[in-house]
Amino acid sequence: MAQHTIHKITNPASTFDLTAYLAEAKAEVEIALDASIQVTYPEKIYEAMRYSLMAGGKRLRPILCLAACELFGGDRTLVMPTACALEMVHTMSLIHDDLPSMDNDDYRRGKLTNHKVFGEDIAILAGDALLAYAFEYIVDFTKDIPPHRILRVIGRLGRAVAAAGLVGGQVVDLECEGKSDTSIETLNFIHSHKTAALLEVAVISGAILAGADDPDIDKLANYAQNIGLAFQIIDDILDVTCTSEQLGKTAGKDIAAQKVTYPSLWGIPASHVQAKQLVDHAKSQLQSYGDAAAPLIAIADYITARNY
Amino acid sequence: MAQHTIHKITNPASTFDLTAYLAEAKAEVEIALDASIQVTYPEKIYEAMRYSLMAGGKRLRPILCLAACELFGGDRTLVMPTACALEMVHTMSLIHDDLPSMDNDDYRRGKLTNHKVFGEDIAILAGDALLAYAFEYIVDFTKDIPPHRILRVIGRLGRAVAAAGLVGGQVVDLECEGKSDTSIETLNFIHSHKTAALLEVAVISGAILAGADDPDIDKLANYAQNIGLAFQIIDDILDVTCTSEQLGKTAGKDIAAQKVTYPSLWGIPASHVQAKQLVDHAKSQLQSYGDAAAPLIAIADYITARNY
Repeated sequence: MAQHTIHKITNPASTFDLTAYLAEAKAEVEIALDASIQVTYPEKIYEAMRYSLMAGGKRLRPILCLAACELFGGDRTLVMPTACALEMVHTMSLIHDDLPSMDNDDYRRGKLTNHKVFGEDIAILAGDALLAYAFEYIVDFTKDIPPHRILRVIGRLGRAVAAAGLVGGQVVDLECEGKSDTSIETLNFIHSHKTAALLEVAVISGAILAGADDPDIDKLANYAQNIGLAFQIIDDILDVTCTSEQLGKTAGKDIAAQKVTYPSLWGIPASHVQAKQLVDHAKSQLQSYGDAAAPLIAIADYITARNY
Repeated sequence: MAQHTIHKITNPASTFDLTAYLAEAKAEVEIALDASIQVTYPEKIYEAMRYSLMAGGKRLRPILCLAACELFGGDRTLVMPTACALEMVHTMSLIHDDLPSMDNDDYRRGKLTNHKVFGEDIAILAGDALLAYAFEYIVDFTKDIPPHRILRVIGRLGRAVAAAGLVGGQVVDLECEGKSDTSIETLNFIHSHKTAALLEVAVISGAILAGADDPDIDKLANYAQNIGLAFQIIDDILDVTCTSEQLGKTAGKDIAAQKVTYPSLWGIPASHVQAKQLVDHAKSQLQSYGDAAAPLIAIADYITARNY
């Protein structure tokens, strides 16, 4: 009679209101980011840093950090400086990626890119300053957490940005420009470094600061790597299916640049299937935590469901 | 009879062989730097990082860090990872300063600048990677030092690079380009941020890691700020008096750019006097340490005595 046994599948995310969770967490992050940089002499550089840091966005990295901290019983105020630092680093990578010598983008999040407003020299320096300040900010503002945990987060954050992280991903991305024979392995390398590495450090830094142990941190790293790739697959799909207005940045860029993407390799329906499988795998990493993992599980689902 | 009292002035640097000290320390730093970055996939970015990191130079920042550590009884191997990180950060600032949208330099230390060899995109990313890796490197390779001291060094290093440090100095420097009315206060701001801030963190990080207390760290910070400005005055003088071959970079750039410099404000003889006064003030900070301060005192003298 085994085939008739009905497993009760509980979905901890079913009663969880993600929209409210994201809105509340985002509001807290915005307040913390706004307070993180004051404009002083020389004003132009602080204004350039703030221009891109306060330009909106989903604040996914800070929110993942807060959610991971809460999963291990930590109060989100403990990790807010690190959450802000993650957004500073992410903002740096966007400013530098948009430069004329890189992706040469004029718009980002519906606004002119940093170098279009402040000039290329200031945009490069604003990125440098945000990156360096992120590390200072974690050190100066993280309270009531053992120093060795903070050090571990700083080491992982440095690695996630450097050549073993998003810089390495961007280098391979630039090398693949205009090439039609980019392999799926290379595409995965690009995005596991360019996108997933920073999502991973966002999640694990919240966990490390809250005192999670190594097996927990490994599970969260797997979760983040999987949602990172899913996120990029969806990004590639949206580049094809959305307008520039919907995206807040130039749409159809990948096709215009004859860039190999997940949909160009697999087609759109199969890309959706792959993204869903990655998200399912990400969620499976969190099974043992029960309802406490509801926010991270809902965020994983949200990544495949988003429309822009 | 007080006016006849002869104070015995002891000069701890008199019997100190700076040339041998610098050669030995530099050789150790070169070995450590060479081991700090291995080339792996994607090779181009690691090669770009190594190209500028291994391009020579005096290695003044690492050596100051080692010397400050030894002043407080620390073994230089304890601070070598931080010494390397300081050179990575310095190298990043040189790569980005040389970019076409900044100072647009073709040569540095007698070699083509990073962007002339690897392209502007890779040069920007090599700088980003060196900056992020510097923090990772300190965390991953500093052993046998209490975490709270390492954290303090990381916080100070971040500050020295960000808008409150060398980025802020570079921004004001760029703003002053082509202006003939730059004040001495502005010139001091530029160089106390663009040059002295990183020298300061080089010296104090060695002291912090070796366990120096706050009054000691203040003295060393004063020492470094003063030698930093003296260093820049001499740099400005050498730009006027040396050939490009001697400097390993384009000479006469300041005059060509109609840039206000210390010699353009004061003339060359008075600039030499000012540099000497700053060095004397720097050395006075170290009086209480006796012979143990001989390397730092000799380095201060060396700064005004150098010919290229």
